[in-house]
Formats: sequence, C-alpha cells, structure tokens
Amino acid sequence: MRKYGLSFNLIIACTALLLVGNLGAKEIIYDAEYVKSYNQHKTQWDKEDKSLQKRLADLQAKTGKKPNIIYFMWDDAAYGRVGHPMLSKLTGIDTPNIDRMAKEGMTLTRMYTEPSCTPTRVATMTGRHPIRTGLTQVVFPVHAIGMPNKEVTIAELLKKEGYKTAFYGKYHVGDIDGSYPHQNGYDETLFTIYNQFGSQFFNKDGEDTGATIGFTKPQQDQLYTIDEEFRNPGTIPWAAEAKAGENAKQFNKDYSYEEQLRFVEEVHKRSMEFIKTSANGDSPFLLNYWWHGPNVAGTHRLGRDSDSSGGGDGDGMEYMDKRLGEMFQLLKDEGIDDNTVVIVMADNGPMLEFFPHMSTFGIYTGGKGAFTEGGVRVPAFVRWPGTIEAGSVAGDIIHVTDLYTTFANLGGAKKHIPTDRVIDGIDQTAMFLNGDTKGRRDYVHIYTGPLLAATVKQQFKRHWVGDRPGLAGKGFFDLYRDPKEIQPMMAQFLWAWEPFDSMKARHQNLMEEYPNTPITRGKPFEGIDLLPQEREVVTPYASK
Amino acid sequence: MRKYGLSFNLIIACTALLLVGNLGAKEIIYDAEYVKSYNQHKTQWDKEDKSLQKRLADLQAKTGKKPNIIYFMWDDAAYGRVGHPMLSKLTGIDTPNIDRMAKEGMTLTRMYTEPSCTPTRVATMTGRHPIRTGLTQVVFPVHAIGMPNKEVTIAELLKKEGYKTAFYGKYHVGDIDGSYPHQNGYDETLFTIYNQFGSQFFNKDGEDTGATIGFTKPQQDQLYTIDEEFRNPGTIPWAAEAKAGENAKQFNKDYSYEEQLRFVEEVHKRSMEFIKTSANGDSPFLLNYWWHGPNVAGTHRLGRDSDSSGGGDGDGMEYMDKRLGEMFQLLKDEGIDDNTVVIVMADNGPMLEFFPHMSTFGIYTGGKGAFTEGGVRVPAFVRWPGTIEAGSVAGDIIHVTDLYTTFANLGGAKKHIPTDRVIDGIDQTAMFLNGDTKGRRDYVHIYTGPLLAATVKQQFKRHWVGDRPGLAGKGFFDLYRDPKEIQPMMAQFLWAWEPFDSMKARHQNLMEEYPNTPITRGKPFEGIDLLPQEREVVTPYASK
Repeated sequence: MRKYGLSFNLIIACTALLLVGNLGAKEIIYDAEYVKSYNQHKTQWDKEDKSLQKRLADLQAKTGKKPNIIYFMWDDAAYGRVGHPMLSKLTGIDTPNIDRMAKEGMTLTRMYTEPSCTPTRVATMTGRHPIRTGLTQVVFPVHAIGMPNKEVTIAELLKKEGYKTAFYGKYHVGDIDGSYPHQNGYDETLFTIYNQFGSQFFNKDGEDTGATIGFTKPQQDQLYTIDEEFRNPGTIPWAAEAKAGENAKQFNKDYSYEEQLRFVEEVHKRSMEFIKTSANGDSPFLLNYWWHGPNVAGTHRLGRDSDSSGGGDGDGMEYMDKRLGEMFQLLKDEGIDDNTVVIVMADNGPMLEFFPHMSTFGIYTGGKGAFTEGGVRVPAFVRWPGTIEAGSVAGDIIHVTDLYTTFANLGGAKKHIPTDRVIDGIDQTAMFLNGDTKGRRDYVHIYTGPLLAATVKQQFKRHWVGDRPGLAGKGFFDLYRDPKEIQPMMAQFLWAWEPFDSMKARHQNLMEEYPNTPITRGKPFEGIDLLPQEREVVTPYASK
Repeated sequence: MRKYGLSFNLIIACTALLLVGNLGAKEIIYDAEYVKSYNQHKTQWDKEDKSLQKRLADLQAKTGKKPNIIYFMWDDAAYGRVGHPMLSKLTGIDTPNIDRMAKEGMTLTRMYTEPSCTPTRVATMTGRHPIRTGLTQVVFPVHAIGMPNKEVTIAELLKKEGYKTAFYGKYHVGDIDGSYPHQNGYDETLFTIYNQFGSQFFNKDGEDTGATIGFTKPQQDQLYTIDEEFRNPGTIPWAAEAKAGENAKQFNKDYSYEEQLRFVEEVHKRSMEFIKTSANGDSPFLLNYWWHGPNVAGTHRLGRDSDSSGGGDGDGMEYMDKRLGEMFQLLKDEGIDDNTVVIVMADNGPMLEFFPHMSTFGIYTGGKGAFTEGGVRVPAFVRWPGTIEAGSVAGDIIHVTDLYTTFANLGGAKKHIPTDRVIDGIDQTAMFLNGDTKGRRDYVHIYTGPLLAATVKQQFKRHWVGDRPGLAGKGFFDLYRDPKEIQPMMAQFLWAWEPFDSMKARHQNLMEEYPNTPITRGKPFEGIDLLPQEREVVTPYASK
C-alpha cells in the first residue's frame, strides 16, 4: 500500500530532498477503497497536493502562524435544516448567522456522519470508524465504556505542532478514566459525559409531566421486587471540567433544565474567552465547541423570544444560531477571520423519537440511528475567508473522519498520524481549497452499531442489512433519482453486484491485517472528583 | 363583500377623485377566506398598496412603458429540483442559469399549483380554481373538452392595456374550438393541444420498446372484437399554430421524438424572435413560454452532452436550463432586463409514474396528481432586477392563480378583471416588491379533480379525503415539523377542527351564489386545419 500525502509533511522546498527524507517514515494505512482511487489518480493528486501545500505555506508566511481551527458541532439535525432559506423556511425557522456563514463559505451537500452521537464523535476524534475503536454505541448512564486512551486524537496531533487546544460542550465519548478530553490532548475543558437526555428522563419533574416513568419516584412493585438495584439511579454526574494533567471535577449539581442551561451558557462564555485570549498569541488554536443541544437540553427555553414556528427544536436552533453569530462577530473583532477555519455541522440525523416537540423531519428517509441517508447526512458548512470560496457548494462525498486528516494537514500535523492502524479519514484539503468536484472520496461505508449496514459508491447505494446471502437482494438505490430510498432496485443493478461485494470484502479483509480494538470498559466516573452527594448514588454501578 | 385593490386601477394622483370615480364600478369577487383576511388588515394593506402603485407609476414614468412579462413554465418537477445547488446537487444535476436567476431574483418557497398540468394551466390563465371552469382533468386524446371561451384570460386583460401577447409551447388547455390560445387573447401562437406523452405512448416505436401496448399495431383479439373503434387512433394532431383571428394549422406531422424536438426548437426560436422584435417597440409584451418537457418529450436527447447524472429527466432539465440562459442573455443584450418581470416555475410535482428514467423524487410526499405537498409545491422564481430584491427568499403562501391578478396589477389591467364570477387569484404585488412576509395569502384549497382534497392554513394542513363525516379524522398535519406528511395528528388539533370546517363551508357556500361552470365539450380539433392524413383518423372521435 503506497502512502499518500506524506511527501508534504514539510513545506515544499525541494521535492527530491523530501522524498529521500521520508524514505524511512512509515506510511498512513488508508482503507482499501481509498487506496484503489489513489492508484487511479496518483499523478494528478500528487501534483495538486504540491500546489495546495504551497498555498498553505504562503498563507502561514503571511499571517505568521498556522490557521486556527474551530470545530462547532451540534446535535441531531436533518440535512437542509439550516444554511439556506430555500430549505429552512420550509420548516419555519430562521437562522441568519448560519445562513450568512453558508454565503461566506462552502456548503457541503454530502457530509456523511455515523448514525448517532457517540459513534460520530469518536470517529472524528480518531479519524476512524467506531468499529475500529470498539465504541460503536451511544454511551448512556452508566455504561462504563469509552474511547481507548491509546487512540490519537486530532487535539494530540495538533498539540505536537504547537496548537493551544480547548474542548467545550457535549463530549459524550465515554464515562471512564482515560476517555475524557483533558486526557486526550485538550489543554482546557468543560464537557458532558453523557447527552442531554437526562433533563427529560432523569429529571425530577419528568414523571409528573409524563415524559418518563419509573425513575424519579420508584414506582416499583412492592411485593415481588428482588433486585433492589434495578431502580432510579438518582442524579447522575453528567458534566465535568478539567485542565490537562489535573483530575476532573463534577460540574453539574443535578439533571435539571436549569443546570443544563448553566452548562450551555458557561460553555459559550469559556469558548469566547478562549478565542479572545488565544487570538493574538503566538500559537494557533484548536477549539472544539460542541453545542449541548439544541434539542432536549432546554435551550429552546432560551430561544422562546424567537419567532421560530418550528417547535422546541426550532426555538433551540434559533438560540444556537444567535450564539454562533456572536462567535463570528468575535472573530471579526479580533481580526482573525482570515486565519480561522470554522466548520459548523450536526452530528447525525434528527432524533425522530422526539417528534413533534423536539425534532423535525428532513428530506431523507430515517433519522438518528438509521443507515438510510436521513441518519447520516447532515447540514455542514466550512468557512475560511480568502481561502475557501465564498458561496460555494461542494457535492463531493465527505465523511466526518475526513476532518481528522484534513485538520491535521492544515495544521502541518499529518506526519504525527499513527501508522500502526487503519485511518478512515481522507485528506480533503483539495475539496476545501479548490472546491466542488475536487474531493478525494467517492464512497462511504455506513455502520449501525458494529454492523456494516450499507455502502455508498458515487450516486449508488447498497443496503447490506436484509440482503440475501448468495443472491443480491433488492437493495440497490440510485440516490440522485431516489434520494429518499423509496424504490429499491435489483435487476437494474446487476452490473453493480460484484463491484459492491468486492468493495465490502476489501474493507473487511483489511480488518484481519489490522484488527479492531474490542470495547474498552472501566469504572464509571473514575478520575472525576464527584460532588459529595453523588458518591453513594453511583456505587452500585461503579462496583460492577 | 368589499372589493379590494380596485381603487388603484389608475395611477394614483388623487385618492379622493379615484374613490368617486369607482363608485359605480363592480368589485372583484374574491374567495371568502381572502375577504376574511382583508377585513383584518384593510388599513395596513390599503396603505401599502398606495405606496406600491406609486412605485409602479414611477417605474413606468422612467422606462416609458409598463413592464414586460415573461411567464416561463415547465412540466413536472419537485420543489428544490433547481435553483440552489444545496438541493439540486442532491439529485445530480446542474442548472447554472436558473440558479443565477434565483440569485438575481426571488425564490418562492411556497408556490402552490394545482396537482396536474391542465388544471394548473387553466387556473393561471383564468385566475380561478379549475372547479369553477369545469376543466378539472388532464386533457388526453381525444377528450373533446376545453377551457370555456367566456373565461377572461390574463392575455385578454393585458391586451386591453396595449400589451403585445404571444403564446409559445405547451398549452394543454383544450382540444376544442374556442379553447385555443389565439382565441383567448394571444396575438401569435405555436402550441400543443395535448401533452408530450404521445412520444412514448402513441409512438410507432413504443410497442417495440415495450413502453406501451395495443396502440401502434392493433393487437386486438381477432375473434371476439365487436367495437371496431376501440383501437389505436393513429397519429394525433397535437401541435398547431395560429395568429389571432385566423384559423389554426396543424404543426406536427406525427408523434415521433423528432417532431417533438422540432416543436421544442421552433418554440424557442419564435419566443426569442418575439422578444427581439418587441423589445424596443412602443408596447409592453406578455410572453407565455411554456416549455414542452423536459420529461418524455425527448429533450433529454438534446441534453445528452450535459454531465447530468439525473437520468433523462436530468438531461432534459439541463437542456432547458441552457435555453433559459440564452433567454436571459437576450434580455440583457436588448437592454430590457430592468423592465421585464420573468417568472420561471414548474406546473406541478414530478410524475413519479415515470421513475426512474423520467422523474425524480423530491422532498415532499407524493408527485403529480397528489394532494400531498409533493403534488402541488413546485420550484418557482421571479426576477425583476432593480424592483424585486436580488437573492431574496419568500416563505409566504402563493397560489398559481395569484399570478393572474398580480400580472394584471403590474400591467394596470386589474380593472378589466371580470366581476361576475369568483376570482381565486390574489394580488401578490406586495410580496414581489416588498419581500418575505408581505404576502397576502395564508391559506390554499387543494383540489384533485373536482374534489376538495385538503386545505392548508398557515403551517397547518387538513386532509379532507378520508375524513370521517361527523368526527374529525386523524388528518391534521404540521407542515413545518412534518413536511412530508408522515404523521397525521388529531388530538393535538382539536382546536383546529371547527376553524377548518368553517373555512371549507365558507368556500363552498360561495359556490352556491356563484355557481361553477359545467365541463365544456365540443368537437375535437374543430377550428384547426388538419393535415390531409389526419382527417380520416380523427373522424370516429369527431363524430361523437
């Protein structure tokens, strides 16, 4: 397998010298499908990369440092929910700041994520499909699982190149020691351990409003209960703060709306402070600002003065948009607009279980958790004034893991990417800087949990789930003509049977050479200084 | 019922004088729901109208004539199919000229049509729901029905104000004498009598390719056939040309792709010539350029050099877009860009029966013929540089009949609108000139054939079809949160039961006062000089 892109680890001065200089370096192990594409386009891509690296070097020479990176991600939204009023107006909301961002930057029409929160988050942290790190499920209280500490995150890569790093917001990548952000490359953090569900389902008021049952007041049968631990776990530690090298401290007092809103507001405050204090320093910065909401967390309450007609989800989106507007204004005020790459995106499709108050149907079939396009295609925008073309729209496939490799390249940190494991993320610098049709990926494997559920190649998609072994099932789709996956086809795709089978086989064969990590388990909340009242509550789980 | 807008028949100079001048005039009979809204907003709307009329008068004073109007309509497309790449890229096509038009003009996100061709076309010609003119069905060979000649078309209105008028393209509003465009206000015409289906279903090659059966080679049973007329009607006259006051002449030789393409190209040529010869004359002009395609008509063949990946439908769209680009260039070249209102829109949702080669699923549920949003919400854009805000997006409801009244107002012809019948079209000048949220309609009744199938009010919709008399059925939808009409609701809409019932009753009660016209029948092709070979073929039908 030939390595791609490593020749550009250093700013190009002399290609020959670099080639010699890298002879001893190990190469990034990309997935089989990318290698196949690279072998077809090697000459052209290598040439394009050379010119891209020169542009990045010129920019660095001009601004005096590498680009700042702000990675803003929010929870659960359908493609088209925001970014252009031709779509967002259909659902009654108004997000002027994201819309303006789309006009000032690039809209990504085929950003694929994993189908749910934890899988998407661990994928983009590591540049790898969750199947490879064992963290294929959404972490709920109290699973006691997490991202393996041996994974090398995007923050760890960029720190090696002198980046200041901060994580603020919804983390949701593990509830065990070793998985927290300050243990994985982030200098300063305020983060959630779980998601925002607790506000409805572990909330003291939840049972009264009918949102949940059997939690806050034990409604257990009093006659036949044997297992006393099968009951309401009480308030869960769900948010913590820490600096690198220190123990984390529990942040939340309880699971109420009020505490969630305090968290949301504090995250915003610290994110803005981080930008301000970093703006004019010598180091570039990486900020993960991962919004705790907009659904369920209660931020719709803050958005109630909006004129959204899209329910709680709409109010929450409008409030988030307002906060984003403040962030963009700050970048301008601090004069770092042109040297800051900002990506804004959702982590997966809408959580349709919360319809109608807290979710909204989108274009595609399925929502969060689904392997149909509705689960994995999200609104996504990237902005870098002067470098990424304003108002551009890219129809190339991009997967959330690609941000790992692309950010690494933008920060000159590709050389630190580990070479002892498969990296799914592809460097998409060409797409960002040269625009539509310049992407480097024409496929994506879609997992649901540990199961390979579908594969997309170009405009075609094959569902593996439900397929009949030995005979291609009626599970082929043309996503251009049937975006909603309404009409499965078979006869029309006889030509595609073997190519899809081979693609799957190449993908899975590589796992034999580079085996997946089994799920990582631990004691929950270890490494977090819990508030006094929590210690007893969590004991039953911690002892398992 | 108070009449609205008539006070502005003449350019405002002295309101008092006008009021006196109109005392004797009869008023336009609008539908009940609009009158209800008008009574709530009378003061504000009257004031806004006064200022709008002044702007129109100022513009006329500056350019020396009333605005030219180009009404471009095409066949069968889903909302979002074109206009912004954030959507069109999802389906693999590229329509740069319509996209540019959207950037230069206004995108209408809630343009409602009737659910199929003939109904939409007769609605916009007359400003009335088809139920009122009896033409509620798609005219097929050889129905021998048509628009009643006593209807007053938009062309007839504008002619009274000195407009030159031309109709080029797909007309499809009747196959009987009195219904043709040169008999209804158009000075010059080249038009289809039916749709473009014949190219597949009456085509000599159709049976060989399996597209159709039983037509071109009579496959009739030879033993038991009694009715000899139940057979292939042979080549149908489907296109004709005429000038006002003359007899029409059949244009097509047969129903082949070649003849359809000859028609499409000739329509484009004459439309461009009409613009050129009218551009610098003393009179303003109205041009209906109604594209014969893009599906089925074979125009996808002309588009095959495109890089569309959207099948025949995509190729056809890209070819149409190319021709539109030529038209916009011509407006610039002739220097009439700023004095020409152009509307570009589809006539109804995609014809899903032609999936996958000739149609594409959109955002909404249902296609052509459906009363779900997929049948009646279409891509629509209006452009008038300097007068309509560039890049604007309006989320107000607009119905295709509104173009009748709005164009009349723009051309100073509202005073000629007949006052002896109900007019469904509402003057939307405010929305065009003052933008988003300035629309005058927050409801729409959706018919399928002669049946009132659903009513939309604001973001809410009620399906009447399937409703249980005496008890509100589970047929209420929130279109913002459930754009695809997936989740019918009842309990959540108990408050809306009576208001929807009343709305329907007010609408239907008015029909008792102003009864609908029964369907108009006649002898097919009368008034058209048929080619010699046609005369015998059509005899069996003509004699019925």
